[in-house]
Amino acid sequence: MNIDSLVASIKNKNRRALARLITLVENDDVETEKVLNKIYHLIGKGYRVGITGPPGAGKSTITNTLAKILLQAGKTVGIIAVDPTSPFTGGALLGDRVRMSEIGASEGIFIRSMATRGSLGGLNKKTNDVADLLDAFGYDFIIIETVGVGQSELDIVKTSDTVLVVIVPESGDTIQAMKAGLMEIGDIFVVNKSDRPGAENAVNAIKNMLMLRDNSSNTWTPPIVKTIAHENKGIDEILKEIESHRKYISDNNIYNIRKNRQLHLRVKEIVEAKLITELWANKINDATDDSVSFENGTSPYKIANAIIDHFKAQF
Amino acid sequence: MNIDSLVASIKNKNRRALARLITLVENDDVETEKVLNKIYHLIGKGYRVGITGPPGAGKSTITNTLAKILLQAGKTVGIIAVDPTSPFTGGALLGDRVRMSEIGASEGIFIRSMATRGSLGGLNKKTNDVADLLDAFGYDFIIIETVGVGQSELDIVKTSDTVLVVIVPESGDTIQAMKAGLMEIGDIFVVNKSDRPGAENAVNAIKNMLMLRDNSSNTWTPPIVKTIAHENKGIDEILKEIESHRKYISDNNIYNIRKNRQLHLRVKEIVEAKLITELWANKINDATDDSVSFENGTSPYKIANAIIDHFKAQF
Repeated sequence: MNIDSLVASIKNKNRRALARLITLVENDDVETEKVLNKIYHLIGKGYRVGITGPPGAGKSTITNTLAKILLQAGKTVGIIAVDPTSPFTGGALLGDRVRMSEIGASEGIFIRSMATRGSLGGLNKKTNDVADLLDAFGYDFIIIETVGVGQSELDIVKTSDTVLVVIVPESGDTIQAMKAGLMEIGDIFVVNKSDRPGAENAVNAIKNMLMLRDNSSNTWTPPIVKTIAHENKGIDEILKEIESHRKYISDNNIYNIRKNRQLHLRVKEIVEAKLITELWANKINDATDDSVSFENGTSPYKIANAIIDHFKAQF
Repeated sequence: MNIDSLVASIKNKNRRALARLITLVENDDVETEKVLNKIYHLIGKGYRVGITGPPGAGKSTITNTLAKILLQAGKTVGIIAVDPTSPFTGGALLGDRVRMSEIGASEGIFIRSMATRGSLGGLNKKTNDVADLLDAFGYDFIIIETVGVGQSELDIVKTSDTVLVVIVPESGDTIQAMKAGLMEIGDIFVVNKSDRPGAENAVNAIKNMLMLRDNSSNTWTPPIVKTIAHENKGIDEILKEIESHRKYISDNNIYNIRKNRQLHLRVKEIVEAKLITELWANKINDATDDSVSFENGTSPYKIANAIIDHFKAQF
């Protein structure tokens, strides 16, 4: 089936066509561009919620329960679960995915796992493309769940309208979240497993951090929600806060500003990736050519300039 | 003083001229290129030793002592100490630097601290340029000391002829080093503070890891040296192993292959950085232009292609 008929099929709510388009996008950069050009005008109605936090904070359980509640309220939900490829966490995540398959059987919910494939942040660079596909299909909510480690904080902001940061009251968990920059990006904070000792300490630690945040361009005060996700406690309140935040960014024109900033970053990344790919695709530009040798004593900057001049001469 | 006279001065072993050239290179990309083009034919005689490992492993003490021994043997040593900018470790590193200033007063030793400035790896992208300056000046050994965290393992390999990985017998330290990929890149392993409990365990853990390493293109078996750096114990042996490794890579033509691979990677990075800089320097290419708007519904890939076409049309 070609792309045109697959795109026509997703307009008719064909989930298998959606799955095939996602696979195309995941595996092939040339196809990604064709697919996105054909579906992009359909997007903009799905609301994108990013859920991040340290490993083991209960993000999958929250995603699961949130999706169930939304479904009961008559909404449809597309879920992108970004799996780190680390062998250390693979087992636990597999368990989460099995658990999530309970809800995956429902017509109104679509779940897709994506591996991070060694990207530095917790998010695959294709996540935005796949979120666009879910949006074009017509899902009311798109939940992007990812482990918040290292440099992923920027990635989730590039994709989401509302960002949830989930932590648990374990010692050091809040500090880990701070180090990973998660405190800077949360629109809503969730202290999960809040029946454990230290829950109040975690809430206070978040409050203190939020006071240090630069709030000059933003009058939203991120709420802190206490949950016990595996007992379904507090998830309703998360949803209430998501709706509050959605209303806030819509009323204050922040939604459009965010969307444009996300688009600008995305265009920038696409341009750079395409240009670099084109540059090295031409064998004559090859910097690893045998003629480029340390023994020649030519400065790497001179070699670099010759390659750039040659690249430009093609146009 | 202009670059030509500064370069003439370093040929006359003027250390102040060297310091000024390093500052130029650190602060200005355009000057970097001019300086490197003028000094690059002078390099290739200095032997580059990279020293990496987790924070607190004793890398500075080892660097310090190693430099002293080399000095006593009639060799000159240039040291690049790469400081992570993290506020958490700033204090400890400052202490190291103060300690190193003891040896810095000697004529045969030159010490330069560089901040990582938010680069993801532990190494500043200018480290290679500064190492070239120390090489051109005529230092027999150039020691590049850096904290091995996250993605820095590739960086130190890009710069060094021999890589030392330093760990201490603390629980979890070896595992941290494994996670950071340090086990893959060490030519020599050092278990420092080897009078502490667990030293033999650390040695065995390294041995086991080394058996898993892909050694197909390399018959060098990395030695594991036990040291107590603050008591000067074992540093002689490190030096002996560095000399063994140096002889090994020279006798087996690995030195030239490494140098060429480093040059290729460096040229690649310079080309990409220059092209991207040139791309966004032109305001007309600006992806953050107000005309690029989410509300227009134009696919980011279409916008990206228009920018690339426009960029190419300039040539």
